[in-house]
Amino acid sequence: MAHIGLPEDMPGITAGFAFRPETAKPMRELAHVLLHESGNEGFTSGERELVAAFVSSRNTCYFCATSHGAAAAHLHGGDAAVVNAVCADYRTAPISAKLKALLAIAEQVQVDGKRVTKGLVERARAEGARDLDIHDTVLIAAAFSMYNRYVDGLATWQPREPEMYVEMGKMMAEQGYVRQG
Amino acid sequence: MAHIGLPEDMPGITAGFAFRPETAKPMRELAHVLLHESGNEGFTSGERELVAAFVSSRNTCYFCATSHGAAAAHLHGGDAAVVNAVCADYRTAPISAKLKALLAIAEQVQVDGKRVTKGLVERARAEGARDLDIHDTVLIAAAFSMYNRYVDGLATWQPREPEMYVEMGKMMAEQGYVRQG
Repeated sequence: MAHIGLPEDMPGITAGFAFRPETAKPMRELAHVLLHESGNEGFTSGERELVAAFVSSRNTCYFCATSHGAAAAHLHGGDAAVVNAVCADYRTAPISAKLKALLAIAEQVQVDGKRVTKGLVERARAEGARDLDIHDTVLIAAAFSMYNRYVDGLATWQPREPEMYVEMGKMMAEQGYVRQG
Repeated sequence: MAHIGLPEDMPGITAGFAFRPETAKPMRELAHVLLHESGNEGFTSGERELVAAFVSSRNTCYFCATSHGAAAAHLHGGDAAVVNAVCADYRTAPISAKLKALLAIAEQVQVDGKRVTKGLVERARAEGARDLDIHDTVLIAAAFSMYNRYVDGLATWQPREPEMYVEMGKMMAEQGYVRQG
């Protein structure tokens, strides 16, 4: 049971959003800009969702890891294997060297921003990352340090039916985060 | 030096905000709602800024801890002693039993949302906390887990002149976070 009187039958963050629309609005907008709207060939929405799923997995936030993992899979042609590989060990996952270098930055931000070193940033740049990609990687990792704590800190309902997340991930991937909900 | 090409001479988060206005907008709005706009006698802006300073202090984010500490001090009649006491040991600080119970929740969220127990929530409720106060405490602690990582993860310039933060804290406390800047 949730720690406070959240609306029933709404999973994970959607219950917090319904409880407090004033904070939901900027939280939805931030996710929309970072994950959906800013995706381009240099740093795609599918790659951004992978970073979100990876950080959520490190924070063991079941709802966020599974839903953003499903969104990432949807954007990789329905391939959940790449998501599982990134969460298990991104260094050996079938992804670009650039994305590996960005995940190495996200990995440190998840613990503490001060752990991001000049060396990690130089490596990302050597693999083709632009300042904007590095900025957005730091902020996606930071933002999921928020979303994960919010979802778990309220003890929201996090259903364990995988098929539910497949549908949710498809919607997130296709429509983004500022839709009605 | 910052990890990416941030505008020079802008301290802490303001440099990240100037670099990426699209993400600055919702990040400013979230802080405004949580710290400024929602303050009332049940959970004042001064108390909300104390929670922000406390979490930032636990995350050893100098810029956020000092600026929000200054905002909290300004809202406590210029009394920095209460801020220092809360950051040193909130359990013995000269604050209400209700705020101590809320800080005990924030303390766990800073580490992991899953560490918030039913017992901590019950204690806060017994001290007079409403569901909205508990919600906002969880979200302030979660949000500063983001802001702190963002400020430190970009290696922003964080000046060490205390008087600069006194002025900044006064502006934050009086005007909130959605002003031009």
